[in-house]
Amino acid sequence: MRILIACLLFIASSASAQTLPSWNEGAAKSAITGFVKAVTTKGSKEFVRPADRIAVFDNDGTLWAEQPLYFQFIFMLEQVKASGAPVPDMHDQKAVLGAMGKATSGMTVAEYDRKIRDWLAKSRHPKFKRPYTDLTYQPMKELLAYLRANGFKTFIVSGGSVEFMRPWAEKAYGIPPEQVIGSQQEVKFETKDGKPVLTRGPSFAFIDDGPGKPVGIYRHIGKRPIAAFGNSDGDLQMLQVTAAGEGRRFALLVHHDDAEREFAYDRQSHIGKLDKAWDEAKAKGWIVVSMKSDWKKVFSFEK
Amino acid sequence: MRILIACLLFIASSASAQTLPSWNEGAAKSAITGFVKAVTTKGSKEFVRPADRIAVFDNDGTLWAEQPLYFQFIFMLEQVKASGAPVPDMHDQKAVLGAMGKATSGMTVAEYDRKIRDWLAKSRHPKFKRPYTDLTYQPMKELLAYLRANGFKTFIVSGGSVEFMRPWAEKAYGIPPEQVIGSQQEVKFETKDGKPVLTRGPSFAFIDDGPGKPVGIYRHIGKRPIAAFGNSDGDLQMLQVTAAGEGRRFALLVHHDDAEREFAYDRQSHIGKLDKAWDEAKAKGWIVVSMKSDWKKVFSFEK
Repeated sequence: MRILIACLLFIASSASAQTLPSWNEGAAKSAITGFVKAVTTKGSKEFVRPADRIAVFDNDGTLWAEQPLYFQFIFMLEQVKASGAPVPDMHDQKAVLGAMGKATSGMTVAEYDRKIRDWLAKSRHPKFKRPYTDLTYQPMKELLAYLRANGFKTFIVSGGSVEFMRPWAEKAYGIPPEQVIGSQQEVKFETKDGKPVLTRGPSFAFIDDGPGKPVGIYRHIGKRPIAAFGNSDGDLQMLQVTAAGEGRRFALLVHHDDAEREFAYDRQSHIGKLDKAWDEAKAKGWIVVSMKSDWKKVFSFEK
Repeated sequence: MRILIACLLFIASSASAQTLPSWNEGAAKSAITGFVKAVTTKGSKEFVRPADRIAVFDNDGTLWAEQPLYFQFIFMLEQVKASGAPVPDMHDQKAVLGAMGKATSGMTVAEYDRKIRDWLAKSRHPKFKRPYTDLTYQPMKELLAYLRANGFKTFIVSGGSVEFMRPWAEKAYGIPPEQVIGSQQEVKFETKDGKPVLTRGPSFAFIDDGPGKPVGIYRHIGKRPIAAFGNSDGDLQMLQVTAAGEGRRFALLVHHDDAEREFAYDRQSHIGKLDKAWDEAKAKGWIVVSMKSDWKKVFSFEK
């Protein structure tokens, strides 16, 4: 029995040392582990039952990189070019979505899925010369796993299209397709050659960005999250709704301040602009993570 | 060790006898257990990994009763009356949805949720004189639990609104709010008295019925189910898409043929019409359950 207890104590202490290993000790890591301890400790007045431990994560700039342009936009640009249509201004999100919608309209969802998988397999990021799916953040992947190990259910809530994330989110993040919430292009049921298929329409049915994110969460999850993670003004309303719930809540922003290991941008950026949400984080005491000082590594491929 | 093995064998044999206890032995029950065995037996060529064991269930008429009128319509009718607007023809689904949308427009989602919970708590079914949430089918609840015990993830895919099902689906069916797919009224993010809220708009953003069901499944789950359960023509496309997938698939219709214990209706009914889907079930060998002969009991409150 003594040996058993010794073993259990050893396992417990090494598990503690291994919590979030790519995070430096500091205010951000302490805030995360303190929050998780508070909501998972039975008998604590801040205890939250597992079914309500809902955590939502933005994707672009929060779980993987988004510079020099959202990766989905780079993919979209190629689809628009291939269709022969004029190329829109890539910083005009509405124009890009419009052009992209038309370029892939009429495809079945299976055909579109194949295009995305092929593109992800062959394409390389201009700076890192690696597949885009290598550009997920190691500390955030540890955070996702840590939350799940503590009974949380983790969801992606992204401005990107569901189709672009679902093929790889399970392998990269441990998040299955049914926990990926995103923008939705119109899709229609049809019968083709006697078989039932779903075909893409030209326009978007739902844009899951900014004020759309709490709507997407309401529609899909139907519960208010207790923790939300983002990096830009597009995540502001999701963080506001999460933080406004009763009981202990957690809101966190990733600040891109590491030009060497990744990119540095915030208030002035076209992509992933962090301005209003940053001010609100300061005013409300939300956690702002410095990629430079809070993270031991950004990507898993770093030495 | 011998005692341990004896105990395990005893537990296994009594578990087998207790599988789906409210189902009579027969073709329907055998088809269900045969399907589950095939997709869960490791090494079998029909094996499906747990992550892909997605089962979708219609709600009205499949998991709970829907006569003399969808229970949500009875609730809606009261909301329309309370708003002072003219009462629409309750068999005209479009008119009902339009009138209902307007009657609850401008409410926050929290206010609407309170209205539904209050109504469900106080209202009684005209025939059974019981709360509507008592009118869930005992054999189907056993089926849901049996599938989950075999690694399935169970979803509701209903023409009803998500708001009307989520407050009680977890307790009644073991299905959490994030696995309830349904019709969606428009919802808008707003700031009221300095607090972020979601407010209901007057129209529907999505109708999850008929050809809408495979679209709802695609949007929400992003995977093709391997098993689908319905009872009416509104479930036809959901069953078609499920059955058209590769590998072993399962499609089942509940036939309401028990006027004594519940209701008897099919091809001529305004509510839950079963006509085209029945013909297709016969043509394709889908399972058609007779409530009268396949179910030992319909409701759990029966003796």
